[in-house]
Amino acid sequence: MLIGVVGGGQLGQMLGLAGIAIGHRFRFLDPDPACPAAAVGEVVAGAFDDPDAIARFAHGLDRATFEFENVPAATLGAIAERAPLAPGVMSLRTAQDRILEKEFFRAHGLRVQGFEAVDSEAGVAAACGRVGVPGVLKTRSMGYDGKGQAVVRSAADVPAAWAAVGRVPCIYEAFVPFTSEASVVAVRSSDGDVRAYPLCANEHRGGILHRTVAPAPGVDPDIAREAERATCRVLAALGHVGVMAIEFFVTPEGLVANEMAPRVHNSGHWTIEGALTSQFENHVRAVAGEPLGSTEARGFAGMINLVGRMPPRERLLSVPGAHLHDYGKRARAGRKLGHVNVCAPDLRVRDAQMAVLEAIVARGEG
Amino acid sequence: MLIGVVGGGQLGQMLGLAGIAIGHRFRFLDPDPACPAAAVGEVVAGAFDDPDAIARFAHGLDRATFEFENVPAATLGAIAERAPLAPGVMSLRTAQDRILEKEFFRAHGLRVQGFEAVDSEAGVAAACGRVGVPGVLKTRSMGYDGKGQAVVRSAADVPAAWAAVGRVPCIYEAFVPFTSEASVVAVRSSDGDVRAYPLCANEHRGGILHRTVAPAPGVDPDIAREAERATCRVLAALGHVGVMAIEFFVTPEGLVANEMAPRVHNSGHWTIEGALTSQFENHVRAVAGEPLGSTEARGFAGMINLVGRMPPRERLLSVPGAHLHDYGKRARAGRKLGHVNVCAPDLRVRDAQMAVLEAIVARGEG
Repeated sequence: MLIGVVGGGQLGQMLGLAGIAIGHRFRFLDPDPACPAAAVGEVVAGAFDDPDAIARFAHGLDRATFEFENVPAATLGAIAERAPLAPGVMSLRTAQDRILEKEFFRAHGLRVQGFEAVDSEAGVAAACGRVGVPGVLKTRSMGYDGKGQAVVRSAADVPAAWAAVGRVPCIYEAFVPFTSEASVVAVRSSDGDVRAYPLCANEHRGGILHRTVAPAPGVDPDIAREAERATCRVLAALGHVGVMAIEFFVTPEGLVANEMAPRVHNSGHWTIEGALTSQFENHVRAVAGEPLGSTEARGFAGMINLVGRMPPRERLLSVPGAHLHDYGKRARAGRKLGHVNVCAPDLRVRDAQMAVLEAIVARGEG
Repeated sequence: MLIGVVGGGQLGQMLGLAGIAIGHRFRFLDPDPACPAAAVGEVVAGAFDDPDAIARFAHGLDRATFEFENVPAATLGAIAERAPLAPGVMSLRTAQDRILEKEFFRAHGLRVQGFEAVDSEAGVAAACGRVGVPGVLKTRSMGYDGKGQAVVRSAADVPAAWAAVGRVPCIYEAFVPFTSEASVVAVRSSDGDVRAYPLCANEHRGGILHRTVAPAPGVDPDIAREAERATCRVLAALGHVGVMAIEFFVTPEGLVANEMAPRVHNSGHWTIEGALTSQFENHVRAVAGEPLGSTEARGFAGMINLVGRMPPRERLLSVPGAHLHDYGKRARAGRKLGHVNVCAPDLRVRDAQMAVLEAIVARGEG
């Protein structure tokens, strides 16, 4: 099948690598003709709201999907008229609106922190009073990797926070005193089969994912299983087709659902070598209407993001058992340039490999 | 780096998939602009001896390699003038000439069967007398997958055999009464690091590889290790850079070296999910002058070729732990269309998976 992907970044590239291996071909819509996905398919170069580019992109596709969720609704509508599009509108609309998202989590048995919709400075101040401080003010839509967010430690912070987020409709969320962060990546096929990868533990730095290990250490197995099951319930309730990730805060009282991403997710990159079927292959299978592959882990896996500056390649390649993924992007502060995966049958081997890689990455980052 | 590959078949495609993941980009020289490798790079469409196509292919490459060994020497010479080419001339010349190949094996401590160079019908008859019957007459160069070969059961077969191979310079080899077939895939880096994957067992059908399992069952571990070491000696002696496979006959008296392939090899396809670093990634690393990855197996692996007709995809995709590799080629009798890999921590699980896949493939083949 010829599968169209809106967005040609590293997620598009990895979807292409996984999908070509199982016999599919790819086309991408991206403003940059030299985007990472250009290595694995034709790129229709154009803005995401350029009707002419969209028409050329959609022409003759067997299936369509996207690698990021902030695609204009009109674009997806135009594409869906020409080729079956997955995930669907329901997933996107829910994920694009932090209020709907939290309400959806709550409706499907996931714990969420206190929150309130706000659309004025006075509204933020009032929400602080009701929900409590400290809290986080986030734009209701279009935020990612820590952008469009402001911390409110006391009522005095409200004016600056409201200015920082750009005075747009927001959600005010109670700060969650979490001990760590975790996520579940899951996938649902077009005929309703739904499978979750094991709960994994994430560590962020500067609002950007730094590392993931799977399965998540130190989480009660019952709690992990319930998070996996709840994620599957959310996918089923949304009629979601493809991969979705839900991020959680780990607290002494259990997991608190934070947000969903209706697409392949950075916290699932470990699945390339660490699971029987990667999140990328499973997303392609789902979009293509094919049976899902096993989401079982192949051992103890780990992933470290390469952000801002690529460490010396030969050092990374020399670590036994390390799997370099280099997206071929130009280096720039804060930019995800690649990641390194490890997967070992033994937990201590995995941790030793991660320690070696962390040392290389620490020296490499500028 | 931009890596040029002469040949755009499935081996080129899999080199591209592995190499893009670690940050390289690819260009292919192939007569067919819609060849399997077109999914993973630019194809310069032209004959392998077309000087204009060769010049366009070689322009601006950082490195060059090939996916099959029967490339005209002049073509490789022209490419090598413009970009570092690996493997080198010594490997190619040896692999392209079955007499040189056998002599090279013998000189580096590998057992070979009786053989003789022949270049006339009378010469074949004489060789039958000295080497013995039954035997196999093979063209000295340019044969693969059972083409250009004829069995000689008695002296009476000589005229027909000589006609069958096309009356060209040949090797006459004593038939080896083997119990099974095996191979070692190994890789050598440009700075002389050489590593072998575990000896694997191969089963051919109609001269085409049907299945591989690794490690090879029923072979004495000392014999397997010696085959791996001998293969490494051959790569070192040739100054080979990249992947090479040596095929062996397993006999009650030990292994007999049959032939080498100076490239990634079908009997190494199991390494994609079955080894810490695949043969494709390691070949790219070697060609690019980068450190090699571990050749350690990740468990008990197996591979079944999909030849002539693709079995129902959804059946293959539904087998837990099966990894479909579909090259996207049009079906045709005798054509390799894809393969399926399995890799399990337990031998019995691997064998059960292989049995399920064999049943699907048996029904699928036309």
